[in-house]
Parts: sequence; C-alpha cells; structure tokens
Amino acid sequence: MTELFYCADLRAATVTLSDAEAHHAIHVLRLKLHDAIGLFDGAGTRASAVITAIDRRTVTASVSSSTFTQKPTVGRLTVAASPAKGDRLKWMIEKLTELSVDTYIPLLTERTVVDPRKSKLDKLSANVISAAKQSGQLWLMDVAAPMKLAEMLQVTASSTRYYIAHPYAADAEPTDCPGVFPPDASQNNHVLLIGPEGGFTDAEVQLAINAGATSISLPGTILRIETAAIAFSAILQQSISRRAAGV
Amino acid sequence: MTELFYCADLRAATVTLSDAEAHHAIHVLRLKLHDAIGLFDGAGTRASAVITAIDRRTVTASVSSSTFTQKPTVGRLTVAASPAKGDRLKWMIEKLTELSVDTYIPLLTERTVVDPRKSKLDKLSANVISAAKQSGQLWLMDVAAPMKLAEMLQVTASSTRYYIAHPYAADAEPTDCPGVFPPDASQNNHVLLIGPEGGFTDAEVQLAINAGATSISLPGTILRIETAAIAFSAILQQSISRRAAGV
Repeated sequence: MTELFYCADLRAATVTLSDAEAHHAIHVLRLKLHDAIGLFDGAGTRASAVITAIDRRTVTASVSSSTFTQKPTVGRLTVAASPAKGDRLKWMIEKLTELSVDTYIPLLTERTVVDPRKSKLDKLSANVISAAKQSGQLWLMDVAAPMKLAEMLQVTASSTRYYIAHPYAADAEPTDCPGVFPPDASQNNHVLLIGPEGGFTDAEVQLAINAGATSISLPGTILRIETAAIAFSAILQQSISRRAAGV
Repeated sequence: MTELFYCADLRAATVTLSDAEAHHAIHVLRLKLHDAIGLFDGAGTRASAVITAIDRRTVTASVSSSTFTQKPTVGRLTVAASPAKGDRLKWMIEKLTELSVDTYIPLLTERTVVDPRKSKLDKLSANVISAAKQSGQLWLMDVAAPMKLAEMLQVTASSTRYYIAHPYAADAEPTDCPGVFPPDASQNNHVLLIGPEGGFTDAEVQLAINAGATSISLPGTILRIETAAIAFSAILQQSISRRAAGV
C-alpha cells in the first residue's frame, strides 16, 4: 500500500507537500526519489503521484492520476458538543473524524466552562488530517466556530433533525434511543447535541425538545462528553448508512 | 449529591476506605467527620454511610443503609480487543466501562504486538473504578487475562453470539452492520472481537465466521482499535437495551 499524504490543492500537475507532510515523508518514512505516493485533498479527490524531487526539507511530486468523489448531500452528521477539557477534546476530534462525522461545532451552553480560542481550534485541524489519513476518509471533518445552543436551534432547516443526548434513570424507556431511524427521507442533516460536564439545564433540554429535537440516551450510564459524542455518532452513523442502503 | 466511593467489601457495618479513596476524600474533597458519603462495591451494592473517623490518612464510615441489585444475566457484552498501545488502552478501558461493558479480554491474534503484563492489567483496575464512579455503574467491568483468538472461539456456548469487526470497502453492504439484533432470545452473551492495528488475517476472519461470528463494520472508514471497540460497543449496547425492553 502506498503511503497517503494530505495536500490541500491537487489541481496542479506538480504538487509540493506541506512542511508537516514533507517531514513525515523524509524523516519518518524515508521515502526516495521516484517513490510512488498517494495524495488526498480532504475534499473528495485522491491522486496517485510519484516523487520528482526530494531533499532534506521539501518533497515535490508529479500527479499521474486522480479520482474525485462528490460528497453525499444526504445523511450528513454534525456533532455539536460542549468542548471537553484538555486532551479529551483532541481525542474526541480524532475519533469523530474516524467515524466520518461531517462537522464538529463547539457548543456553548449555560454550564459550558471551556470556550476554545480560534488558535486552539485551528490546531485541531492537524488531528483531523492525521485521523482522516489513518482511517481512509475522503473528506476532512470541518471544525466550525463555537455556537450557542439557542442560536444553533434557530437554524432549523426543514431537512435537519436534532438529537439531544440527555441521561435518564436506569429504568428509562430505551425508545429514547435513536435506533429506529426517522423514516422521513427529507431529513438530510442530523445534528447531535451534547451538553457540558454538568449537563444541559432543564430549560435547555426543553428548548431543544420544543425545536423538535429527539432525546437520546443509553440506559444505566452517564457518559462523559467525548464518550457520548463518539457513542451516539457511531449509533447514528450506523442508522444513516443502513438507511442509505435501504435496509 | 453525596460523593461516591469505591469499597470492595460492604458487608460490615463499619468500613475503611482504601488508600486511594481516602486520599480523594481527605485531600481533594476535604470531607469532615459526620459527612454523608455514598459507597459502591462494584458488584451491585450501593450504600449510604456517614464518616465516623477521619484523620490525615484514613477514613472510616458507618453504613446506614444499602441496596443490592442483581446483575442481569441476559445481554452481557464482552469486548475481546487486541490491546491498543500506551494510553490508548487506558482510554479504551475507561470508555468501555462508561458504556457498561461487562468484560474486557485482551485478545491475542497473529498480528497483535502488545501483550500486556499482568501488572499492567492490574493497574487498569484503577481506571475501571474511576470510570465506574463517574458514570454511575453498579458493576465494575472485569479485566480478564489475555486470550488467544482460537482459544476464545472454542468456548462457544450456545447462548453466545460473536461479532467480528472487520473493515470493508466503502461500497460494502451495510447489512454487515449489527443493527438488526439477532432475534434468538437465548443468546445471552455477546462477544465483540476487535483485531490489532494490522487487522485480523484472512484465516482469522474465516475462523471466526466458521465459529458463527457475525461480521460487522461501519462503511467507508477504518477504525483504530479503541475507536472500533467503543463504536461497536455503543451500537451493540443500544441494540441489547432495546431488545431487553422489547422494542
């Protein structure tokens, strides 16, 4: 298997790898002149290329062929989760990328204590790229700007379905879980809302329910932010892919 | 909410907290004499207690009442995953505990490179306890001894169903995903098999399929060990809880 590198722009016949990717190619993988490599732009294009110049700092490659795949417009998954602390956010970003989540939005709620700065969010793009490479994604997950819950719920397109993760008592009805996917095929966008460590306030849950959100939970447990984001993304992605296949 | 502490044996009227739990009570939470605390033994018992003695190193509490909940014998989930490297294993253990997984077995396969020593596995019990406390579990996840795949598949009780996580091409049938839960109610034990970084060998996949394992995957992505373990555990737990509720 040829090694895969990220390259934001694959329109030219000759491309130069970014510093980070070049470092990986030169010093970690120790690639040589004329070695074949794979390239992806995180926007649907994959290319085969051959290294035409390599020194201690730069790698230039000639693109021999490329394929473009249009991103599906149905079954898109956005995770709007209150940012977890420290490494947990980085870890969550990596896992959501692996799970083919389309967009991550840092959700600001009443009890949210972490409000990541733009510089921190920008840094997460390196985690998105490496996770995308590792898991073979065609599209990079988009890390959006922080958004308040109320603001978010106002953007209720008719084709958007919201899910709010909210733990219930151990004897809650499992029908709260989104296992049976909504049969309305016009719902192209799925937005998962995950609260902060202290949970959503009752008023926030009510606000989401009033806006048409479906309440979801796994019985008998209170999940951390990043665990809830990953667990419910997996459950939703499975439902979405099954639905796309008509099973 | 009273703070919850782990105490392996709650049969006595008076209990002494372990060093780690005492440290947390004394130096982190700064609890005092006569403070009310909660206790759990990770085996179904929860108790209310009052601190009757506290100094700089030890905490003794008097149990006022306790409740015992029998662990369900149906819908048990075992995750047999090839150990992830370094912190990823610790992280996986924490997340599987949050997801109410019953048992983790370090799975030894042909391409497994990490074979955790007993001392390392023992250390993971601290992660299990803290995750159980944090997520409100009644039972601690059991961390079992490492086991080889072939050995594992020989223990096929008639009430056990195996699932093998194995990535397919992006155009694979989503029917490979375990969304529709097996309708045979006699299947009380569910065992999720997750391979190492390099994947199961074809022979290993065939071995599992021959032993009756269901092949599962999420289309369009190749998940890391810990991501696959968490994602498929979430999907299975949802199916199991829905099934338990008859929905």
